[in-house]
Amino acid sequence: MRNINEECGIFGIYSPIDTDVAQTTYYGLYALQHRGQESCGIAVSDNNIITYFKDIGLVHEVFIPERISTLGEGKIAIGHVRYCTTGSNDRINAQPIVVNNLTRSLALVHNGNLVNAYELRKELEEEGAIFSTTSDTEVISHIIIRERLKSDSIEEAIQKTMHIIQGAYSLSVIAENKLIVVRDMHGFRPLSFGKTEDGRYIVASESCALDVVGAKFIRDVSPGEIVVFDEQGIHSITDNCNLAPSKICAFEYIYFSRGDSIINGRSVYEARRTAGQCLAKHFPVNADIVIAVPDSGIDAALGYAEESGIPYNIGFIKNRYVARTFISAGQKERENKVRLKLNPISAVVKGKRLVLIDDSIVRGTTSLKIIQLLRNAGAKEIHMRVSAPPIINSCYYGVDIDIKEGLIAAKYSIKEIEKILGLDSLAFLSHDCLAKMLNTEVNKGYCCACFGGEYPTILPQNRDKNKFESKINSKKKAYYEKL
Amino acid sequence: MRNINEECGIFGIYSPIDTDVAQTTYYGLYALQHRGQESCGIAVSDNNIITYFKDIGLVHEVFIPERISTLGEGKIAIGHVRYCTTGSNDRINAQPIVVNNLTRSLALVHNGNLVNAYELRKELEEEGAIFSTTSDTEVISHIIIRERLKSDSIEEAIQKTMHIIQGAYSLSVIAENKLIVVRDMHGFRPLSFGKTEDGRYIVASESCALDVVGAKFIRDVSPGEIVVFDEQGIHSITDNCNLAPSKICAFEYIYFSRGDSIINGRSVYEARRTAGQCLAKHFPVNADIVIAVPDSGIDAALGYAEESGIPYNIGFIKNRYVARTFISAGQKERENKVRLKLNPISAVVKGKRLVLIDDSIVRGTTSLKIIQLLRNAGAKEIHMRVSAPPIINSCYYGVDIDIKEGLIAAKYSIKEIEKILGLDSLAFLSHDCLAKMLNTEVNKGYCCACFGGEYPTILPQNRDKNKFESKINSKKKAYYEKL
Amino acid sequence: MRNINEECGIFGIYSPIDTDVAQTTYYGLYALQHRGQESCGIAVSDNNIITYFKDIGLVHEVFIPERISTLGEGKIAIGHVRYCTTGSNDRINAQPIVVNNLTRSLALVHNGNLVNAYELRKELEEEGAIFSTTSDTEVISHIIIRERLKSDSIEEAIQKTMHIIQGAYSLSVIAENKLIVVRDMHGFRPLSFGKTEDGRYIVASESCALDVVGAKFIRDVSPGEIVVFDEQGIHSITDNCNLAPSKICAFEYIYFSRGDSIINGRSVYEARRTAGQCLAKHFPVNADIVIAVPDSGIDAALGYAEESGIPYNIGFIKNRYVARTFISAGQKERENKVRLKLNPISAVVKGKRLVLIDDSIVRGTTSLKIIQLLRNAGAKEIHMRVSAPPIINSCYYGVDIDIKEGLIAAKYSIKEIEKILGLDSLAFLSHDCLAKMLNTEVNKGYCCACFGGEYPTILPQNRDKNKFESKINSKKKAYYEKL
Amino acid sequence: MRNINEECGIFGIYSPIDTDVAQTTYYGLYALQHRGQESCGIAVSDNNIITYFKDIGLVHEVFIPERISTLGEGKIAIGHVRYCTTGSNDRINAQPIVVNNLTRSLALVHNGNLVNAYELRKELEEEGAIFSTTSDTEVISHIIIRERLKSDSIEEAIQKTMHIIQGAYSLSVIAENKLIVVRDMHGFRPLSFGKTEDGRYIVASESCALDVVGAKFIRDVSPGEIVVFDEQGIHSITDNCNLAPSKICAFEYIYFSRGDSIINGRSVYEARRTAGQCLAKHFPVNADIVIAVPDSGIDAALGYAEESGIPYNIGFIKNRYVARTFISAGQKERENKVRLKLNPISAVVKGKRLVLIDDSIVRGTTSLKIIQLLRNAGAKEIHMRVSAPPIINSCYYGVDIDIKEGLIAAKYSIKEIEKILGLDSLAFLSHDCLAKMLNTEVNKGYCCACFGGEYPTILPQNRDKNKFESKINSKKKAYYEKL
Repeated sequence: MRNINEECGIFGIYSPIDTDVAQTTYYGLYALQHRGQESCGIAVSDNNIITYFKDIGLVHEVFIPERISTLGEGKIAIGHVRYCTTGSNDRINAQPIVVNNLTRSLALVHNGNLVNAYELRKELEEEGAIFSTTSDTEVISHIIIRERLKSDSIEEAIQKTMHIIQGAYSLSVIAENKLIVVRDMHGFRPLSFGKTEDGRYIVASESCALDVVGAKFIRDVSPGEIVVFDEQGIHSITDNCNLAPSKICAFEYIYFSRGDSIINGRSVYEARRTAGQCLAKHFPVNADIVIAVPDSGIDAALGYAEESGIPYNIGFIKNRYVARTFISAGQKERENKVRLKLNPISAVVKGKRLVLIDDSIVRGTTSLKIIQLLRNAGAKEIHMRVSAPPIINSCYYGVDIDIKEGLIAAKYSIKEIEKILGLDSLAFLSHDCLAKMLNTEVNKGYCCACFGGEYPTILPQNRDKNKFESKINSKKKAYYEKL
Repeated sequence: MRNINEECGIFGIYSPIDTDVAQTTYYGLYALQHRGQESCGIAVSDNNIITYFKDIGLVHEVFIPERISTLGEGKIAIGHVRYCTTGSNDRINAQPIVVNNLTRSLALVHNGNLVNAYELRKELEEEGAIFSTTSDTEVISHIIIRERLKSDSIEEAIQKTMHIIQGAYSLSVIAENKLIVVRDMHGFRPLSFGKTEDGRYIVASESCALDVVGAKFIRDVSPGEIVVFDEQGIHSITDNCNLAPSKICAFEYIYFSRGDSIINGRSVYEARRTAGQCLAKHFPVNADIVIAVPDSGIDAALGYAEESGIPYNIGFIKNRYVARTFISAGQKERENKVRLKLNPISAVVKGKRLVLIDDSIVRGTTSLKIIQLLRNAGAKEIHMRVSAPPIINSCYYGVDIDIKEGLIAAKYSIKEIEKILGLDSLAFLSHDCLAKMLNTEVNKGYCCACFGGEYPTILPQNRDKNKFESKINSKKKAYYEKL
Repeated sequence: MRNINEECGIFGIYSPIDTDVAQTTYYGLYALQHRGQESCGIAVSDNNIITYFKDIGLVHEVFIPERISTLGEGKIAIGHVRYCTTGSNDRINAQPIVVNNLTRSLALVHNGNLVNAYELRKELEEEGAIFSTTSDTEVISHIIIRERLKSDSIEEAIQKTMHIIQGAYSLSVIAENKLIVVRDMHGFRPLSFGKTEDGRYIVASESCALDVVGAKFIRDVSPGEIVVFDEQGIHSITDNCNLAPSKICAFEYIYFSRGDSIINGRSVYEARRTAGQCLAKHFPVNADIVIAVPDSGIDAALGYAEESGIPYNIGFIKNRYVARTFISAGQKERENKVRLKLNPISAVVKGKRLVLIDDSIVRGTTSLKIIQLLRNAGAKEIHMRVSAPPIINSCYYGVDIDIKEGLIAAKYSIKEIEKILGLDSLAFLSHDCLAKMLNTEVNKGYCCACFGGEYPTILPQNRDKNKFESKINSKKKAYYEKL
Repeated sequence: MRNINEECGIFGIYSPIDTDVAQTTYYGLYALQHRGQESCGIAVSDNNIITYFKDIGLVHEVFIPERISTLGEGKIAIGHVRYCTTGSNDRINAQPIVVNNLTRSLALVHNGNLVNAYELRKELEEEGAIFSTTSDTEVISHIIIRERLKSDSIEEAIQKTMHIIQGAYSLSVIAENKLIVVRDMHGFRPLSFGKTEDGRYIVASESCALDVVGAKFIRDVSPGEIVVFDEQGIHSITDNCNLAPSKICAFEYIYFSRGDSIINGRSVYEARRTAGQCLAKHFPVNADIVIAVPDSGIDAALGYAEESGIPYNIGFIKNRYVARTFISAGQKERENKVRLKLNPISAVVKGKRLVLIDDSIVRGTTSLKIIQLLRNAGAKEIHMRVSAPPIINSCYYGVDIDIKEGLIAAKYSIKEIEKILGLDSLAFLSHDCLAKMLNTEVNKGYCCACFGGEYPTILPQNRDKNKFESKINSKKKAYYEKL
């Protein structure tokens, strides 16, 4: 139902003694499942021997107990969840990427997106490198391995790699009996670490995964920082810190992260509530109730209700059971796919003037159906308030936003969108409010390129960034459409 | 995580012409999935030939598109979802029960529980009947078939059957090219029907399933009523109506049903909100915020907030991904199972005086863990308000409540429970408020036997009602524990 | 590739103490797999509690180790394999049939076919019985249960049942802590038993299954005999013996049974070799080599070679890997399905005059393709010798022969068949030789109804014996053909 | 049951127009399944876009019809089957190896083994290459890609590659819209090609796969030859031919290949039969019957019988159903695993003096059990004749023979083996006879290093050739043994 997707979530664990690190990684990935539902994988290092498994599916589907057992015990593990695209079935691109070299093995998980992956890949190919996936993570592993040959240590190799790869990357790496984690110099994607009572270090894309495995939050990895966990304990390398302005992705607060996570010191829940309050202050309306598109609009809706004094109500019931394939070959599509997932509570909305809160509008197609469901359920007025600014640009940092042509706010004015969606009124979060939401000043510390802000990095020369992959995918797509 | 479970949800469709009735049933069951996650099944009748499939698993797991296709088209279909018990793997007891007789086939789905199933089964066995399941639904099918032999019509047979079987039953039956639905004389379990724009009749345990398949709600099936859908249209048989007082299960409003359902004319969402308001009126407290145990406590929490003026906040993030097996053989259980599912938002609860709303307390074990999570997250005071009266008795009408010995409220006073759970205060919904919640007078029209009210029927002579099944299950259980 | 199929194989074990009887049954069924590849099942009795599992698939596919474990230990187990029909997917009709009655449980496996099943089923239905399968085994279980009500013991009930059911049946039954095995009064289907060194009794359709589980062959169950295994040891009930002439199915020797089995005291391998020798004696030919259609023609081919002095050669390589689905939707059928399974060795057949031995000809379609393959490989002359008489009648005793209309020998003379198949000469086994093969006199002790002999029992009144089942199957078939 | 395993079988197809090349490859792999049962894979090239799938399992298990469909149509496909090692589950090492490079994709299947893979891999790693598998096929793909950078054409790159890699390799490669096949300069492994009536070229390890897909055999690929199939038709590059003596693996005739295959112009069936005749001539014995260990000893047994005049009989029934996991956790191993697969026909062997033919003896453990089964079945004398010389050395060319320490003939004299196995007499094929079997002179044109002949190439410096892999495997093995 979404037209916007996070690419991934990553996890890592370093235990001073051999333990069930795969099991803990399983729990961590389970807590990060919202960041990616397409595929997942876990790699375990037991004294430099890396065993791993990855496949298409949710964490609990892929990692049945027997599967976790075969990974065995160890001191280090990393894990990954990857997002879901309809019809794709691409086991090769799942992570971790594992390098099985005789001398120096490596396992790598990545959240983000490189802007110079295509150029680097071309260069590497020209030097004879071969690729077995279409993922930029494989590019990173090539470069680390090559830099390692010219470096005195794996840490040095990674530090140099950070000057070669550009874009967004939070990495968790197993190499040479160490767990090494890295956040790009802009810090686009979140990454934090903590420690359990029994001394195991945990790294995760979001702090909620630390909570779930019983680790106490220590701190975020800083933009540009390398943190090494090994027999000596923790060691931080900060040579690449402060070389670039911090640019956390605003969408982490708006939509991706779980409300119980704290990112860069800011509670995601509080951020969303603040956005709702701002919307109420700047775009008040005479209405009977505030409702939200579940789940991502609920926090902001509570903020709106609080600020406006209009009572919050539950407008929809969302079906909690994940059913990935709704449509069989011969189906006549009597059924509305949005309705299968969301059903308005008519007892709540009938005859009411509604404030409807959603976190964002991408293409507008889902919003349109939701508004129709509310009208059919008897809503009298619908005033939509969106807890993000209009999305008008693509993202090159790991968020799968539609190409510009598909973005409704890139093509139409707010008044026009109001009309297209059949709304009584529509308002988006202002850039001032966005800054307030993120507890900072406008354009300070966060990336808002998709809202029309500056791109913090060079852009991919080849904007059709996954040229190769898209060739393969278009072939597959054609197949699936034929079905 | 729950110690209380609904037995099932049922669905039926009658289409004047052959259509993809299995597909529509799939969508309906998907909307009823919250009523049962253990197993599911669909039977399709194409001109008296009944094809069916049932298996362990969620609806979307069992009914992959190819499976639905093999059921083919037809005029009539029924479907069933059944609840989940840990470790059980019992394909035989899945429904529909299908009788493959040469002369008169029958397919049957059932929500409820008979109180005289054991006695009836014994009688039937003494007359030579054989049973292939341990389910009381098979008892019903035997009796319908036998009564049919002595009756002029299937309707008459079903009407007589209703005087033989006692207890709670909402049935959906395919027989003799008709869809026949029945609600027991007390109307313990909900059942309603509607019609799609293209003239297909839909029957479902809850109205939310009508919405999802695009059917307009017509009305509830009345207690004691038989509704027949066939070539002639709808036909209602009311001979067994008004022979007993209406006794809808209060727990349908408190916990089982979806908030978007309307049962016996009462919105489930409104009922819960009303309960929250009552709790606020009768058990006020000085607190900073109201939070709920998701999802079942949220509606009442909003009511409490509204009435009390204390702001409602989101206290927990619930992991939405269903992971049925958390524990692998060797796992050292460092991890807290409740925490895997529920994580408090510390930014919200830290240093706060909380009103915590939950829909009910059964054994108290989950509540205890939730309260500990809140304390660890820094809650200052916790005042728990429960939107149901204390549960002190077992249920014989299709709800899997622990035996009396396991019910915390049957053993301890409210003050004692307060202490056991580590609460600053605790209050339950009063019986007056329960009546208000259900929009009726105390003890009028609903069953509250589990709260200490009268049982509306005779009780099973053999209280250990599933004597046979439990022998089998104990064997299985022993096996699973050994693992 | 065959147009003739055995219905099933059965197995049973009685152990004086609780052991892994399910595991032993697994091995036994594995040895009987050639008797049925559609579905299989195992039931285990542990002190009157019967647990079981059955499903579509080969024994090793259905009974993965975890599945066997869940069946637990016990004193008694029975098992069943069932034959394969293309496209069918009928889990309901798998065996054992298990009666889960409160007072008297029963589990039953059956090899054979009743000739009065339809009539009995109708009678039972008229008395109120319900059926959940379309299998005649369920009819038998109904009757045993009913007779048990009127009898002093389960043995008496079974003995009476044998006077009610007519046709071919070898049964293995778990009831009242006993393993009870039965062979119909004609002894159509084989059944024998043995004992392991550690005192466990084993019953199986064929003696090869006794060998595989390490049991020493004791003897065949006699036609009409009931053998009871319980705490007292073995007990034989012979009241129903010698009430009818023995009529072992000749096809057990010709085709179904494994060469290492000994049935009614006659080695299956020796029987086939004898048939080959007879063919050589009565239908000699000038040829260079003798080859066989593998695997069923090999034993007879060796007999032919021995008697004639013409050397035996391997004419074909048979692909040993079971691949059930060869044809995908869009396939253009360039490939010849017979060729996928059988490839002639051109080095052997090129330019040679061949004697080609096969065990039987049913429709002739496979023979035609085989002969074409040989011609393409350069065979100069092909003289086919068939180690069975021409099949001209249907079977009602558990063998799935084509209806009469499909049998090539029922429509054409031997000369005509010779021409149709493109043979240089063709000969079938004579009835005298068949008797010699079975070590008896013509028509003495065996059933040869399909070869034009007398049917030993009444015939089904309703010859379209599986009227009900075929209605269902035709619906399914239509579906599969649509694919 | 075998202690000797072929590594793989390969297949390729070039079609002038887009067709269902994946489907044809499926049939070809099905015919080559005997060369490898662990894993399989198919890659399809549609205008330089390579889609592929590979997994653990038999061909018909992995390539269900839907899976083949997703590979789509194309002009070129290659396929691979890989052998089975107990307990291993190694999806990563399945083939094809596919290089997904932006500029030049490549897909590669390989049968054989490189002797300098370790050294080449080390060199490549030192230049920055990364490996994702432990297979030497990945080494080949690296080198082809690197050589391509320095060459004018892919053909030139492959030709140069052949001077870098040493050992045994038959390759089938998709690159730059061509199908390119290669046989190493010694021609260790077989490879031949043919053409279908509709103009599609087929390449396969064995000619039996050409037969099965309806292709007419054209010829073997010569040792050192590169054959290119593209829009221009066939093109042969012979620059690397005749640079080394031909060294076809003798075991292809003794055991691996199917009897219906013709390799280097010699019928495999004829070769085996000749070996049997030689054994009879040189090691005659007074015996009653000749029997074989099925299936690999049958052809030689027929030759022995023919030459000696002692009649051939079927001594064992082999269970044709592949059941990979026999042993569940708690099993007490009453059952003899060899007996589950092979059952002697006691009617045949009882009281007889037997000549027992097997194709080879590796460790002797299986032979020992087979001989015990025969003794238990009543064999009077057992004279074993082996249709291969004693195996006394390891193989480095793609055959998985036990390390030297495990080879019974490397440790014991023939007299000692006779005693160990409990035989009345034992004889092996002489080297003269081996040459006769292969239709050549002693040591001319074939490799017999494992029988004590010269190794045709340098040996791996690191004899523990799969050092890396074995580290991983030993970890896994430990895990499986713990189970």
